[in-house]
Amino acid sequence: MKSHTEYLTFHTRHRKEIVPITDDVERIIAASGIQEGMALVSAMHITASIIVNDEESGLWHDIMEWVERVAPENPDYWHHRTGEDNGDAHLKNLLLHHQVVIPITNGQFDSGPWQRIFYMEFDGQRDKKVIVKVIGE
Amino acid sequence: MKSHTEYLTFHTRHRKEIVPITDDVERIIAASGIQEGMALVSAMHITASIIVNDEESGLWHDIMEWVERVAPENPDYWHHRTGEDNGDAHLKNLLLHHQVVIPITNGQFDSGPWQRIFYMEFDGQRDKKVIVKVIGE
Amino acid sequence: MKSHTEYLTFHTRHRKEIVPITDDVERIIAASGIQEGMALVSAMHITASIIVNDEESGLWHDIMEWVERVAPENPDYWHHRTGEDNGDAHLKNLLLHHQVVIPITNGQFDSGPWQRIFYMEFDGQRDKKVIVKVIGE
Repeated sequence: MKSHTEYLTFHTRHRKEIVPITDDVERIIAASGIQEGMALVSAMHITASIIVNDEESGLWHDIMEWVERVAPENPDYWHHRTGEDNGDAHLKNLLLHHQVVIPITNGQFDSGPWQRIFYMEFDGQRDKKVIVKVIGE
Repeated sequence: MKSHTEYLTFHTRHRKEIVPITDDVERIIAASGIQEGMALVSAMHITASIIVNDEESGLWHDIMEWVERVAPENPDYWHHRTGEDNGDAHLKNLLLHHQVVIPITNGQFDSGPWQRIFYMEFDGQRDKKVIVKVIGE
Repeated sequence: MKSHTEYLTFHTRHRKEIVPITDDVERIIAASGIQEGMALVSAMHITASIIVNDEESGLWHDIMEWVERVAPENPDYWHHRTGEDNGDAHLKNLLLHHQVVIPITNGQFDSGPWQRIFYMEFDGQRDKKVIVKVIGE
């Protein structure tokens, strides 16, 4: 078994943002030299998510609006008694999940026709990291 | 390390449907000859999900109703400006997640007493695919 | 490829409870002797979840309250016609997902600064199990 690990760093301009990362993940898979296996793409923070969905700006708007509706900002979260103000970002992270596992076949992300990978930032404007770990052969 | 990959195809009669796939996944694990490892079961579309839950038709009704309530159909999604009408299916896919990773021990799905695997279709009546990739030894 | 599998058992005092398990998972990773790979941490029940989030009691309160709001208790679930009363626990399990995959680098959980692992019980007061399967080299 071979393995290969890289870290991506994000520092978004806005507090909440969707960042396409498919090309980064595909570059890391290629660098690993692994032909058959899996890649774990996992946010290293508890206020960000990794999703697989469509590269369509209208849909990105819908996703952000939906996430806000299901896991809204709210000054009354108990977490804010610690001085934090990002309680909603923790819940959004749980709602969308912080990781995906990508199948690798013939040295590439074995994806369906519309599957693209995105980093979802819910508490940005500072350095945040994602780990990409590829295992296989 | 060994690996084995198969694809399942679904073409549901209804637009939204729950399809049991535990037997398919167990057949693929057996065909892989892998005794210890993991299987990734991942929808190759962004309008379908893979879940692990109970084989009970009343619960299936509850799940579908709950998913509709949390991620409802809505003509006003911006995604629909592209001519699509399946914005809700994208959100349902995110809510339930598009994949699971199955532990394999002694050549079998190492499951709890009630864990069964399901394909959740939210925009069907056309060919859709799921990848099952098994890695291990 | 090496693999190592252990099972954790929980019997919570309350029906709903959050149990920190990072130390257990790190002990199992160490016992595996695996330096590079992944660990699957997966609830073997369909009424419990595994999450990665913050070790902060106020946030735990917020998470439990949020989960109750999005996937509430409700006597009218069809699942209850079977004699069960835990329909909400099935939906909470789907909302938070029943598993995470942990990256292992240099023999340790390769985590961000605040990432801790938790078992979320939604129908406890009886024996429940979690599988931890480590693969790598």
